[in-house]
Amino acid sequence: MTVTDESTPKLYDTRGGLSFAVADLELAEFGRKEIRLAEHEMPGLMALRREYADVLPLRGARIAGSLHMTVQTAVLIETLTSLGADVRWVSCNIFSTQDHAAAATVVGPHGTPEEPKGVPVFAWKGETLEEYWWCTEQLFAFTDENGETVGPNMILDDGGDATLLVHKGAEFEKSGAVPTVADDDQSVSEEYRIILDTLRRSLAAESGKWTAIASAILGVTEETTTGVHRLYQLAAAGELLFPAINVNDSVTKSKFDNKYGIRHSLIDGLNRATDVLIGGKVAVVCGYGDVGKGSAEALAGQGARVIVTEVDPICALQALLEGHQVARLDDVISTADIIITTTGNKDIVTAEHMKRMKHQAILGNVGHFDNEIDMAGLARLEGIRRTTIKPQVDEWVFPDGHSILVLSEGRLMNLGNATGHPSFVMSNSFSNQVIAQIELFTKHDEYDREVYRLPKVLDEKVAAIHVSALGGDLTKLSKDQAEYIGVDVEGPFKPEHYRY
Amino acid sequence: MTVTDESTPKLYDTRGGLSFAVADLELAEFGRKEIRLAEHEMPGLMALRREYADVLPLRGARIAGSLHMTVQTAVLIETLTSLGADVRWVSCNIFSTQDHAAAATVVGPHGTPEEPKGVPVFAWKGETLEEYWWCTEQLFAFTDENGETVGPNMILDDGGDATLLVHKGAEFEKSGAVPTVADDDQSVSEEYRIILDTLRRSLAAESGKWTAIASAILGVTEETTTGVHRLYQLAAAGELLFPAINVNDSVTKSKFDNKYGIRHSLIDGLNRATDVLIGGKVAVVCGYGDVGKGSAEALAGQGARVIVTEVDPICALQALLEGHQVARLDDVISTADIIITTTGNKDIVTAEHMKRMKHQAILGNVGHFDNEIDMAGLARLEGIRRTTIKPQVDEWVFPDGHSILVLSEGRLMNLGNATGHPSFVMSNSFSNQVIAQIELFTKHDEYDREVYRLPKVLDEKVAAIHVSALGGDLTKLSKDQAEYIGVDVEGPFKPEHYRY
Amino acid sequence: MTVTDESTPKLYDTRGGLSFAVADLELAEFGRKEIRLAEHEMPGLMALRREYADVLPLRGARIAGSLHMTVQTAVLIETLTSLGADVRWVSCNIFSTQDHAAAATVVGPHGTPEEPKGVPVFAWKGETLEEYWWCTEQLFAFTDENGETVGPNMILDDGGDATLLVHKGAEFEKSGAVPTVADDDQSVSEEYRIILDTLRRSLAAESGKWTAIASAILGVTEETTTGVHRLYQLAAAGELLFPAINVNDSVTKSKFDNKYGIRHSLIDGLNRATDVLIGGKVAVVCGYGDVGKGSAEALAGQGARVIVTEVDPICALQALLEGHQVARLDDVISTADIIITTTGNKDIVTAEHMKRMKHQAILGNVGHFDNEIDMAGLARLEGIRRTTIKPQVDEWVFPDGHSILVLSEGRLMNLGNATGHPSFVMSNSFSNQVIAQIELFTKHDEYDREVYRLPKVLDEKVAAIHVSALGGDLTKLSKDQAEYIGVDVEGPFKPEHYRY
Amino acid sequence: MTVTDESTPKLYDTRGGLSFAVADLELAEFGRKEIRLAEHEMPGLMALRREYADVLPLRGARIAGSLHMTVQTAVLIETLTSLGADVRWVSCNIFSTQDHAAAATVVGPHGTPEEPKGVPVFAWKGETLEEYWWCTEQLFAFTDENGETVGPNMILDDGGDATLLVHKGAEFEKSGAVPTVADDDQSVSEEYRIILDTLRRSLAAESGKWTAIASAILGVTEETTTGVHRLYQLAAAGELLFPAINVNDSVTKSKFDNKYGIRHSLIDGLNRATDVLIGGKVAVVCGYGDVGKGSAEALAGQGARVIVTEVDPICALQALLEGHQVARLDDVISTADIIITTTGNKDIVTAEHMKRMKHQAILGNVGHFDNEIDMAGLARLEGIRRTTIKPQVDEWVFPDGHSILVLSEGRLMNLGNATGHPSFVMSNSFSNQVIAQIELFTKHDEYDREVYRLPKVLDEKVAAIHVSALGGDLTKLSKDQAEYIGVDVEGPFKPEHYRY
Repeated sequence: MTVTDESTPKLYDTRGGLSFAVADLELAEFGRKEIRLAEHEMPGLMALRREYADVLPLRGARIAGSLHMTVQTAVLIETLTSLGADVRWVSCNIFSTQDHAAAATVVGPHGTPEEPKGVPVFAWKGETLEEYWWCTEQLFAFTDENGETVGPNMILDDGGDATLLVHKGAEFEKSGAVPTVADDDQSVSEEYRIILDTLRRSLAAESGKWTAIASAILGVTEETTTGVHRLYQLAAAGELLFPAINVNDSVTKSKFDNKYGIRHSLIDGLNRATDVLIGGKVAVVCGYGDVGKGSAEALAGQGARVIVTEVDPICALQALLEGHQVARLDDVISTADIIITTTGNKDIVTAEHMKRMKHQAILGNVGHFDNEIDMAGLARLEGIRRTTIKPQVDEWVFPDGHSILVLSEGRLMNLGNATGHPSFVMSNSFSNQVIAQIELFTKHDEYDREVYRLPKVLDEKVAAIHVSALGGDLTKLSKDQAEYIGVDVEGPFKPEHYRY
Repeated sequence: MTVTDESTPKLYDTRGGLSFAVADLELAEFGRKEIRLAEHEMPGLMALRREYADVLPLRGARIAGSLHMTVQTAVLIETLTSLGADVRWVSCNIFSTQDHAAAATVVGPHGTPEEPKGVPVFAWKGETLEEYWWCTEQLFAFTDENGETVGPNMILDDGGDATLLVHKGAEFEKSGAVPTVADDDQSVSEEYRIILDTLRRSLAAESGKWTAIASAILGVTEETTTGVHRLYQLAAAGELLFPAINVNDSVTKSKFDNKYGIRHSLIDGLNRATDVLIGGKVAVVCGYGDVGKGSAEALAGQGARVIVTEVDPICALQALLEGHQVARLDDVISTADIIITTTGNKDIVTAEHMKRMKHQAILGNVGHFDNEIDMAGLARLEGIRRTTIKPQVDEWVFPDGHSILVLSEGRLMNLGNATGHPSFVMSNSFSNQVIAQIELFTKHDEYDREVYRLPKVLDEKVAAIHVSALGGDLTKLSKDQAEYIGVDVEGPFKPEHYRY
Repeated sequence: MTVTDESTPKLYDTRGGLSFAVADLELAEFGRKEIRLAEHEMPGLMALRREYADVLPLRGARIAGSLHMTVQTAVLIETLTSLGADVRWVSCNIFSTQDHAAAATVVGPHGTPEEPKGVPVFAWKGETLEEYWWCTEQLFAFTDENGETVGPNMILDDGGDATLLVHKGAEFEKSGAVPTVADDDQSVSEEYRIILDTLRRSLAAESGKWTAIASAILGVTEETTTGVHRLYQLAAAGELLFPAINVNDSVTKSKFDNKYGIRHSLIDGLNRATDVLIGGKVAVVCGYGDVGKGSAEALAGQGARVIVTEVDPICALQALLEGHQVARLDDVISTADIIITTTGNKDIVTAEHMKRMKHQAILGNVGHFDNEIDMAGLARLEGIRRTTIKPQVDEWVFPDGHSILVLSEGRLMNLGNATGHPSFVMSNSFSNQVIAQIELFTKHDEYDREVYRLPKVLDEKVAAIHVSALGGDLTKLSKDQAEYIGVDVEGPFKPEHYRY
Repeated sequence: MTVTDESTPKLYDTRGGLSFAVADLELAEFGRKEIRLAEHEMPGLMALRREYADVLPLRGARIAGSLHMTVQTAVLIETLTSLGADVRWVSCNIFSTQDHAAAATVVGPHGTPEEPKGVPVFAWKGETLEEYWWCTEQLFAFTDENGETVGPNMILDDGGDATLLVHKGAEFEKSGAVPTVADDDQSVSEEYRIILDTLRRSLAAESGKWTAIASAILGVTEETTTGVHRLYQLAAAGELLFPAINVNDSVTKSKFDNKYGIRHSLIDGLNRATDVLIGGKVAVVCGYGDVGKGSAEALAGQGARVIVTEVDPICALQALLEGHQVARLDDVISTADIIITTTGNKDIVTAEHMKRMKHQAILGNVGHFDNEIDMAGLARLEGIRRTTIKPQVDEWVFPDGHSILVLSEGRLMNLGNATGHPSFVMSNSFSNQVIAQIELFTKHDEYDREVYRLPKVLDEKVAAIHVSALGGDLTKLSKDQAEYIGVDVEGPFKPEHYRY
């Protein structure tokens, strides 16, 4: 893995091991074309570029970004740089990088493959876990105007891995050592061992580095339910090292990206992976949160019969009233043709469940980590055999001869088997990200080491841009009407607890 | 209007003016049959009856209830009495009373028409506004064990009219007089004049009555968005006279009653009122909150093309992503076949709008008061003519000969033209009401003069009962899984800000 | 039952036995109002009135109509008379008459209740079977210009009862006697005994009457699948006495009335009958023909989970691909909350099935006769008890205490519990009826004693009127395009076997 | 283009010009894997293999197949060979070949890339029109047991190109010459010139060849609306040279493949081509036949707002009653985000229309030929510029700078941009094809030179296999019930004119 001259990157490393110049014409040019098309579908980001064109509110910001390196993210990155930021980037998932988007981001809007002027990106589709954490480490090595290596002052995170590395690094520097783990300790995941190894190497090379990095960071903005959950835990324990904005719970994120994004990309992932007819099939959706709701709507919209599994009775009641059967996975596993996990929890589909699935049934995860589906347990089953049909589509054959199809090795299949959420949806989420970055960077002294949400009026601003882009015409309240319901004519229009 | 011997009511007044004995066999017996069937569809209330059968937690409570006097409300009332409460009741809407439900409630589950053992009900379908406020006044005249007249110690409110009367009464008693309003003062509604008249009479008859009533009340539980909005305003102004529980914003209320209730009853109201095919028609839904969402789903489910008008860009974006056009009423009013208001605001459909509607287009309100549609303005149009097709269905003929159909005189048409939300939905809402009444009555000293919401775990309890009644099987978290996401195995399962 | 002065009817008989003047102001006036509103929703019939205003193609026609006497049928009848026909009418179902529509039809558009100028109608809601067949007999007694009693020369039929009476009458006159049936002969239905009694009386009074009537009839136009099926059987056996046009299989009838009509009126019937929430419930739809498809769409549109039972694998595969479970009634009967029959066959839900239904489950038929549900078998169960909740809603209580709700005594519940299909849908069907009447009456010598369908170009004409009424704009083929696909610019656009 | 040793093909030509051995391990092995998975999703074909395993009804058949060379077609081909047929194959569309399916078909189920035992396939993704017709010519050169070149005795056609070549060849042989066309004759399409060139070469090389081929052919089975239309025209003109079975109009083809196939593959094509969010967008569907219905359902299921254009008022009325707006393309072209043609006619979207489309609006065809969209006219516009974003996705930039995205050069985008209909749907269509091939081959002397449809009972048989594969349980008619509706217990269950 070689990445040279990162400040003005000339070499860019993809497909782990084989290094090649981003001058690779085809890949980067294809990426630039797709970025140009995506800009049209991301009116929120383009509006922010116009709004802040003169102010450059992110001048001086050094943003370490860890978020799926897709075409949409490229538009986000270039929005951040167009507002003045210095940016470095990694993907937050080993399968989610679109190589052409990465290459084009390195080239940048004003560069050429021969003379790239973009930002350093450390990501390629199909990283190993070691490579993944090596990349994440590179995220923190900015170069200042004097050519000195310097850390970021902002993190933009998805799932919290960048934040985790800083917190763990600082923690181990404080305690003086990275803990060692016995080889046969089953309680520690393979990935956590790699994180420890990464930090062990890092601390050996340069002591105090993570403590310094942490102290320079003004704040983090976090994209997902899972990452936000980690942040709230850190804050509750008094261990959060810098302020955080919870972007996930902006309405224009969680009720749009999570629901309408997955409604689009779940179908896309299933189709590209398997070409199997969805109509007429029995599809089990595990979890009926926003992602589950979008999944169920997508599958039903293609004519599948949807069965929902749920822990939360409120969500379960919603599923019932939308016409879905609500059952336990144990009771329906052997009648399902398609099983999709959306829970954000672990061990949802166990190896025992998988044994009982129908021949050639399809199993995919759009929830969070690959532990929603017990991939480790599956691999441990005696006599199990894995045949790769094509990248990210594996047939697992059980000793009795029947087999199931597992997508993206149990990781997010809408990213692994397709291209993730479409631009328009991400324009909502990423507009919130940009706004949150500006907020924390420019007003960091107004924030404590807590987790914050963006004010509703900004949420409404993001929504209004996208309503207009879809040709919708908003009604204006009269002053009289606004008074009658006790709001301002310009909003916000709802109380904080309103659920949409 | 004559209601005699209210403690064990023998006479019951319906159809304003003509009094008759509830011994009217047919009406009361029909009501009792429907109540019996409804009990099966209200598993939440029946479960509460069973759960508290021995404790009788409402023993000593004198509950003044102001809520649509329907069959479902009858089951609520009898749940309250079966938990020990003494209850008096009025409807909170002049058209929403189901006379057979009122009659049967007076008879009670153990009475007969000849020997009624139920609760006093002051309500009939088609009250005048004067009658309506006369009824509301009767709500506050309980009789104690000594036969003395005594006020309630709890209010169960829908829209806040009972609470309003107490607060206004006490306010005027404090200021010493009910304000007088000039006859030609256009800023004061006809209804508010009647309220003032009612209180003027009351204060003249018995000074200090409302202050005494207010001081005896331990709390109010409020059902609707509109009523809750009033309560928050009172609390913000420091004028709230007793603690309040906001039942509306329990998830199992606002995301179920408001959405799925209207999905059912809007269609029902349209059909009973007009028998007009909904499929293929252009339906404009004003407002895309929970009620608007349910309305749009219902209309689309019958094959209408739905256009949404919205002020709030977030809700507007939701409408667009569900496939609805979002436009301003001004731009689409003359192409609409059906127009439904759901906003909770006023002057949504003005007389000018109505002039421009298509011949025989249908106009109905399921939002809140009759001022969503400017009925007063319509009536003032020069040359306008009203023909009543049947009760609650009026054809308004414009001078140019074209006409529109207005349902329930602009009041809630799902109640006026049909029977309101179905039992199962109301079982959710009313279970929250009962739980809130128990909470405030038994723990009133733990509450200040503020507006509270019920804890999430109770919301989940209500949901779980109804999931089970629909045959849904909930999944149980393992202890390990619960820890992983940081919740208790038994719930609550979501953070407070979760939106469902 | 007294109907006097039928040629200019002054008396009109409703509610079997009690005769009263149609001068009954309220009933007739309400009917006239609803007819006026319905005319706006029946653009097909109104267009035919305009098109033929000068020609009066039905002058000389004496049409005996047997079809649900609803508001929509009133518009049909007045379209027939406005085209010159002399008309008499009965309902084809004992529960389907809307009394106000009947009264208003007797009054007529130019009459008053005091001086009716409409047509004789023999129908009221809730006839006994004896009354029903007595009414049908009255259908055939027209009066000619000389005041002589004379038979019809056209039949407009729905279900084929009028046609049946003529054929059976003629058959028995030919054979010389009406067959007698032993009292204990279980193979003969109660209704058929009544038909035999009716004809026995008739033949005794006037021999040769039915033969004469049959010979004068130029043709019949038939509305339904069931009636058409009878006609094809008669034709196949060579026993059809006059030409027939199968209106049912016009696309604008069977693919609209059957599907979209029921999508509307099934929900309406369920709601008016029971007020029970449909959302979240398990609904079994027996049969997935056009009526079943409309039923399933309606129930799913309200949030029910739909299970389909089917005999025909093609229809079953359609149900599956629309996301419905396909199962046998035996396997799902005890989990269903709502069961709807739509098959046009008999013994679909047997008494054994009903025993196994859930407590307070709802059972209704929108298929054809009341033998789809084995009502006779239910009534014969030992220990069964029937409680009428309200007209057309019966609770049948089994000996073990659990009960089910049966709508309209097993007859068409969309007519018995609601008002049948809405006007707009019926405008399509009835336009075909009018066109078919004109065709057979004016060109009867071109037709043999066979069953015919209307040419596609007329079907398209009916559709075009209704497209325009809904604001749709049709595209015109260029001449070049028309040639390319081998059709005429004006249509017809599809081959005969096209399925839509 | 080199294809050597065709009887046991060793070389296989893809990507026109570069020839390579099918021994190409990866491509062929991937194809074999996908064929194996597809077999599970094609229960109809697998059931036919089992049913006829002993009889080998196609022994002696030499089938020339022209149908999209996909994975599903590979299963069809291997079903034909497993029933005894000798087969040669081409694709019927220049973009629709899946190269791995082609390679694997050449290898065959029992071959290896080194020793292929499959059938000769002349097809690759991205043929030129010259290559396409060259391939089609190769279809007719079978080798008999003596190694002699011999023609086919059966055609299996999709769109009618194989049939066309035979008919045109025979026609020109009869007339003695292939007509010449002036270079500037605008009335003759480029493709037709190539057909003439192909035949000119062929006739020059071997006179009488096509006449001999035509006389040896026992029949053709045709897959599509377009091809069937050509056949009916030939039959009507008395020019059809052999019997034909219209497979398209089997219900299990036209109401499933056309509707549910496109519901799946339209979305798939849009997503793979553009990654653009469909939800919230305005999508115009031109044509509301079966393909249009499936398209509209798919787009609406993803949250688009669908506008339909239609010529046929019956289909237009269906669109309206399903909640879609019906408008003329001229009136809505400039508000559409996505435009899909489904008509089977030409010049639906003209160059003038395309000029008026929104910036970056998407245009695709799933109807029939590339003349539905006037691609030739677009290319002729002055100042127009084409940028290929990726294969089968072109951005056409207008002189004013705005651009549109055209998919698959106006050809079937569900095949060009995705993988066509999924296996399960094709299993229905292809089962009819196999049954039709068996029928015509084994009973050819019972058929005239006409166009026939398969009997309904075979349609029902195909459906029943697929119902069972989806877990549906069919109900059985009792003998009594079957008699009641006048059908056999085993079916067929509906009259011929029934529309499903």
